[in-house]
Amino acid sequence: MQNVYKIKDFKFHYKIETRWKDLDAFQHINNAVYATYIESARVDLFNRWGIAGTNSGQSIIMASLKIDYLKQLKHPSALLIGQRVSRLGKTSFDIESVIFNEEQNPVCHAIVVAVCFDFVSQKPVEVYESITKDYEE
Amino acid sequence: MQNVYKIKDFKFHYKIETRWKDLDAFQHINNAVYATYIESARVDLFNRWGIAGTNSGQSIIMASLKIDYLKQLKHPSALLIGQRVSRLGKTSFDIESVIFNEEQNPVCHAIVVAVCFDFVSQKPVEVYESITKDYEE
Amino acid sequence: MQNVYKIKDFKFHYKIETRWKDLDAFQHINNAVYATYIESARVDLFNRWGIAGTNSGQSIIMASLKIDYLKQLKHPSALLIGQRVSRLGKTSFDIESVIFNEEQNPVCHAIVVAVCFDFVSQKPVEVYESITKDYEE
Amino acid sequence: MQNVYKIKDFKFHYKIETRWKDLDAFQHINNAVYATYIESARVDLFNRWGIAGTNSGQSIIMASLKIDYLKQLKHPSALLIGQRVSRLGKTSFDIESVIFNEEQNPVCHAIVVAVCFDFVSQKPVEVYESITKDYEE
Repeated sequence: MQNVYKIKDFKFHYKIETRWKDLDAFQHINNAVYATYIESARVDLFNRWGIAGTNSGQSIIMASLKIDYLKQLKHPSALLIGQRVSRLGKTSFDIESVIFNEEQNPVCHAIVVAVCFDFVSQKPVEVYESITKDYEE
Repeated sequence: MQNVYKIKDFKFHYKIETRWKDLDAFQHINNAVYATYIESARVDLFNRWGIAGTNSGQSIIMASLKIDYLKQLKHPSALLIGQRVSRLGKTSFDIESVIFNEEQNPVCHAIVVAVCFDFVSQKPVEVYESITKDYEE
Repeated sequence: MQNVYKIKDFKFHYKIETRWKDLDAFQHINNAVYATYIESARVDLFNRWGIAGTNSGQSIIMASLKIDYLKQLKHPSALLIGQRVSRLGKTSFDIESVIFNEEQNPVCHAIVVAVCFDFVSQKPVEVYESITKDYEE
Repeated sequence: MQNVYKIKDFKFHYKIETRWKDLDAFQHINNAVYATYIESARVDLFNRWGIAGTNSGQSIIMASLKIDYLKQLKHPSALLIGQRVSRLGKTSFDIESVIFNEEQNPVCHAIVVAVCFDFVSQKPVEVYESITKDYEE
């Protein structure tokens, strides 16, 4: 299964490096930290899409996160995260992300279900055009 | 849907409090931090089951994590996490967790697929008896 | 030296519990996490003083942090943080904090130099009256 | 004062990039996270010195940490950390670190007092030769 994912299949690429504190008492990169890596990559996409970095105006909230852990990670590692818009709904969409290690092997696969959300009305709104443009079947 | 979950439906209860640093730039508790709350609750279960807290001997690794976000969280909040063993396989099992806020409303629902793992042989092993005892359909 | 500090010598008391993720690869609570414990206690004081939790209006910034590490910490530990306003200047003041473990032994001693700061004018302002009231020589 | 520090005055250079989660509710990089940046740089030095990354064998513990905050930090920022051994004692030594932003301006200055420590005997030992070699007045 791990060979299914290739960085070239992802439209967006984001680099991130591990920190010593990302290790936990098992001396592996902590499971929750994978979510933080993916988040940094996601915020980079949000900037591309012109999404406000604050809780006002045109925003996005997360409905769910699913991570499949494929490999353990050591520190230091220079990682590459592939991202793509993998599903488009009316007010929600999916971001598929895969973190690759230095040997180009996937260390985890993640799906985030994101919702376009107006913090003023506190209601979901239609997926922004900047996002629909980046959708690829 | 949020009314489906009640703390009394969970065999194990774990208390945790938010910290100011758990907030992110949106001034809500950060999404990845929910995974850290659930992890602290899970490690408490591992202690109950006699699982080594280090990468040696009888251990458990995570195969996947799925979190559904139901509510935003503010700081300070005193949270209660309900946990139960919700599925039992040969070498793997599921832990279902729900975080409840101070009004007893669920703020997220999570499923962790865990694998009993021997770090010496680097292979999955049968689910430990201490865990099967806690399984409830 | 460790016997110098007693919780009763501190005007303000704040409770905080360790989390599993606070441990690092050395299987001790990570040094930087002590700063996060102290910060949560400090923000609690800020609330008492009516300081805005955002970067607008009447605010406080940190000029420096000094932590002396006295003892290693394990997880789980229920900690008690003693705090007091230990110095008062024109626009700055010191908060002295000591973290105590469950045996009432100090695990670290910290001094934060804080500056009353107006984010609009981007300038230091006189120490707020709510703080000067809490100063004790 | 900020002009006192120049990256060329530091023997060791370490690169680190901010993450979105390093921001706090003030939308600045959190104060405690500066300690984590400096720690990653320090562990890189420890590897150079052949210090075990676990709590066994030839090790180093922190006696104190002092950070002076000079500038606020935004995300994303690519940082450069300068480090040098600035004091040498019998069993302890100081590491002086300065974090520089992309405009080569110092954002903080830190002194860590470190102690060479044997986890088996639980006692301080003489500063390791690998460290004394790197000392510069």
